[in-house]
Formats: sequence, C-alpha cells, structure tokens
Amino acid sequence: MPDGVMRALVWDGDLRLDTHIAVPELSSDQALLKIRRAGICNTDLELVRGMYQFSGILGHEFVAEVVAGPAALVGKRVVGEINVACGQCDFCQAGIPSQCRDRATVGIRDHPGAFADYLALAVRNLHVVPNSVVDEAAVFTEPLAAALQVLETIHVSPHDQVVVLGLGKLGMLVAQVLKLTGASVVGVVRHQKQADLLAKWLIPAVELAAVEPEQASVVVDCSGTGQGFADAMRLVRSRGTIVLKSTYQQAFPVDLTQVAVREIRVMGSRCGPFAAALRLLEQGLVDVEALIEARYSLDQAREAFDKAGQPGALKVLLET
Amino acid sequence: MPDGVMRALVWDGDLRLDTHIAVPELSSDQALLKIRRAGICNTDLELVRGMYQFSGILGHEFVAEVVAGPAALVGKRVVGEINVACGQCDFCQAGIPSQCRDRATVGIRDHPGAFADYLALAVRNLHVVPNSVVDEAAVFTEPLAAALQVLETIHVSPHDQVVVLGLGKLGMLVAQVLKLTGASVVGVVRHQKQADLLAKWLIPAVELAAVEPEQASVVVDCSGTGQGFADAMRLVRSRGTIVLKSTYQQAFPVDLTQVAVREIRVMGSRCGPFAAALRLLEQGLVDVEALIEARYSLDQAREAFDKAGQPGALKVLLET
Repeated sequence: MPDGVMRALVWDGDLRLDTHIAVPELSSDQALLKIRRAGICNTDLELVRGMYQFSGILGHEFVAEVVAGPAALVGKRVVGEINVACGQCDFCQAGIPSQCRDRATVGIRDHPGAFADYLALAVRNLHVVPNSVVDEAAVFTEPLAAALQVLETIHVSPHDQVVVLGLGKLGMLVAQVLKLTGASVVGVVRHQKQADLLAKWLIPAVELAAVEPEQASVVVDCSGTGQGFADAMRLVRSRGTIVLKSTYQQAFPVDLTQVAVREIRVMGSRCGPFAAALRLLEQGLVDVEALIEARYSLDQAREAFDKAGQPGALKVLLET
Repeated sequence: MPDGVMRALVWDGDLRLDTHIAVPELSSDQALLKIRRAGICNTDLELVRGMYQFSGILGHEFVAEVVAGPAALVGKRVVGEINVACGQCDFCQAGIPSQCRDRATVGIRDHPGAFADYLALAVRNLHVVPNSVVDEAAVFTEPLAAALQVLETIHVSPHDQVVVLGLGKLGMLVAQVLKLTGASVVGVVRHQKQADLLAKWLIPAVELAAVEPEQASVVVDCSGTGQGFADAMRLVRSRGTIVLKSTYQQAFPVDLTQVAVREIRVMGSRCGPFAAALRLLEQGLVDVEALIEARYSLDQAREAFDKAGQPGALKVLLET
C-alpha cells in the first residue's frame, strides 16, 4: 500500500494541484489503482468552465496498475469504465449499467477522478490491458469505446454514406471506427491539421461547403455546437440518421418539423464497450497515438489544461 | 365525364369557395375522382394560417368514386395517397415514394386538393376501398395510415410502456393503433372529452402531472408544440424513443445534451401505409367514426374550417 497522501488535480470552482490528498481507502468491491497515464477530455474542459455541478478530483480517461485489491488483478495494467452503477435499478438489471439511474461517474459526478496518483474504483469496472497495448494507446480506451458506441446506437452498413462533423479528439476516433465498417466515410475539416490526419488514414477530408446537402445516410455530430447540428440537418438525407456524439454547451432552436417531415432519426450516443475498444487497439486497427498533442507531468496539470483548451488541440496526456 | 366547371375550396391568401373552377383534365397516368367525403386535417388549418407556401385547392383526406380513367377502376370507391412521386429519384427507386425528392403533395404542395367536386390523381396512388368500409370510415384512411407509420418508424414491442401526447385527431388514431401491439399505452389528456373517448377504447387516460418521469420506453408526440416535446423529453426513459408524429409551428430550443447523455432516440414519422390502414378499417380494429366532430356540405366549407379550428375539435368532414 502506498503512503498516506498523494497528488491530485482538484476542481472546486478553482483548479489546483493538491499534494496532500489522502490516498483513498478501499471498500470491499474496489481495487486501488496507481495511475500511469491519463487523458484530458472535452468534458474536463467543460467541467472547469463550470458547466456541470462537480467538485473533486477530475479525470476519467486513464490506464493504471492495480496495487491493491483482488489478488488476481494486483500488478496488472487496467483501464476502467467510468459509470459506477448501483446494480439494482431497471437499467442495471437490464445489463445497461452505463444508464444506471443512480450512477456515479468517475471524475464527473459523485466520484473522484483519475488526475491523481491513485484512484479507488469498483473492480467490476476494470478491464485488463493486453501486454501488446502500450500505455499511450491504452489511455485512449475510454474515448475509443465512446466512438464504438456509434455502432451500438445504430447499424452502420457498408452501403452507408457517412459524414463526420467536428473532427476533434473524439471525431477522429469516430471517423476511424466507422471506416472499419466498409461504409463511405468523409470528414468535414476546418483546417489543414485535420486534413493531414485524415489523409494518414485514407479518410477523405472535405470542407463543409463541398458536401452536397441531403445525401448522407448517416451524419455523426461530434461538434458540440448548434451550428454543427444545423449542418448535420442540412447534410442528412430524408430517412437518414444523425448520431449525437457530443454534448452541447446549451439548448438551441431545432426545426423538429423537418425531423418529422423528412423522417430523420436523431440518436443520442454516450459511453461504449471497453472490451471492443481494447480489441481494436490490440489489433492495431485504430491509430490513437497520432492524436497525442502533448504530454505533461501531473505536476504540470494546470499547464496541460491550458494546452488542451487551445483551439484545435488534440489529446493532452498527463503522466504520473 | 362531368360538366366543365365544379366547386372547390381555394386558398390563395384568402379562403373561398369557387364555383367556377374548371374540372381537371386527365393526363395519361391519372384517374378522375368524384369526391364523396373529405376530412379537414391540422395541416389544412396551418395552411390557411399561412404556414406553408401553397396556393390552390386544399384537402388531402378523402374517399371518392372513380369516374374516368382505367376501365377496371371506373365506378370503384377509392382513397388516394397524397405524395405524387417522380418515380425516378433515389427514394422512388428505393420504394420510398413518400420521400421522393421531387414530389408534389395533394392539397399541400404543387398539386390540387380534394375539397372540390373532382380531383385528378395518379392512378398508382389509388387504393380501392372494401365494400364493408363505409365512406365515413374510409375518409380516415390517410390519417390512420399516418398513425400506422409509427410502427414502420420503430418497433413497438408488447413490453413497451407507451405514452401518447397530444390527443387530437391524429393522437387518438395513434393511441388506438399502438394499443393493438399489446404494449401498455396511456394517453395524456387535458379535458374530459379526450378521457371519455379513450375510456370507450379501454385506453387509460392520465393527466400530465400524474405521469412519472423517465419511465416511458416510447413517447409519441402528436402535440405539435414545444411544450409537448419538452414533456416528451421529461417522460421518456434513457434509451427510450420519442416519435414525432406532428409538425411544429416553429423551431424552439431543444436540450440535445440530454438526448446524447440519456441516449434518447428522436424519430420523425410522416405518411404511412394505406393498405394496412384499409385492413384495420375492414377488420373494425380501429374506431374512427367516434372521431367525427361535425359534417358540412362543401358549400359550407368556410364554416367547416371555423369549426375545425375550435380548441378540442376532432374531425370535421365535408360532404360533396
């Protein structure tokens, strides 16, 4: 067991590195994780802009080593699902713990996060990382699983014409995952860096003005903006599907008459399957390391947040 | 063939009965229909409020007799699908003429309507009415088909907990159709007349305040209002479905973050299968005649519109 105190990046209206946080004590269903790498997500940036009611240690994307808990896990590298479910409600009973009615969410709601030396997490949330998947790939398991959730939300067929809007960290993963279906996937880019990355993966990059309206059978909106959703409505064909893959900063006017008359489907999509994400990483079918923008030590976590918040920044990692 | 002129209810910014409209001439793919009964729909009311760009003869719900056209049809009673499709575009080729990219719509867009003595309509749009289905039932074929389209839009299972919002003319048909699946269906009522009708069909009627939030697996919004959609969002469970079964007078703010995080599906649903609607009418499985609010002759069409526009009014029929 580690010493009594640890470092942690705490948000309580102010963002600060606290070096005297007590190392968490374990309840009987938890393991103690020594964090190896953690990733900064847009949700973290939104949290420190005060968009959610959360106070505590931030961070929900990580790879760690188990240092205490079930003997079979100690010493193993793991990643962890972020929804800590009650196990009792109708969603848990139906095998959908990610929508548990009484869930906590690591680093987002009612549960300490991973931007720290240690994290105590429910054992049932852990997945062992295959040896061939290095830390800097494994740390992408959570967002890659979220990208894969598009394929749980809807059936993407090889006949589909897919457009991905909002090619940030998550959009880049979504584009790569959807490409694996054989469908035609194009990414709408706003700058050269995005186009270069897509070119690396042989995914066509187009500017918004070049996309013909009402042709896409599937539009995945990772933009998080009202304008992005309006673009999605313009690009999707009748009977087509818009998948909402990011949250929006606020409510905005939506023309639901068009949704009704054109029989559009608007589908929310959130957390996804970790096991499938680890399989794709093990098989090298998704390139995550190209998405790393910068690396910082946990001691430099505030600088890391500044970097992650810059326009166009991709994944910023914290090393502990 | 009839005389050279006929009566028709014309909208051109003003609503008026014109008694000197030329009886339409037939193109080679059309039949001439002598209208027997026609129904006033909310879309008609919206048209005369100027919500759409349409000028011409109104009306798209009707039952008629074929008086000219293919010999096999002359003398038959028919109903007619409202989307007059190009036959050439990708949607037509895919067997979805209702979403034809170049369609006209009877009495709504680029095509004369049925509030007239005669209507010329594409033969391929016609369905012969079984003898046992009286005119006052057959005139409901179009809205009943639209109600049935909910079952094309989504799979409603006998396990579903369905809430219908907006129990007007269409909502009453939706509630009856969904009841046939064996699912639990409740209607949210605002006044006693709605509750009495639902009671007749053994469909539980509840007031909005009595519906527990986040429990319905399916909410069908027939309200046509922003408040109705907000209610739908509140009542639907995570991973549940909101079916949009009516148009909305304007765009309004929607909290799409909730759609994303709760993985809600919002599905547009428009015109439906006439053949299935006629089967339900023939089998007596849906009670449409209880929905008749009043009957007017075509000569009294303006009074009929006033009646149809009264709050809580159900179906107003025109007799020619």
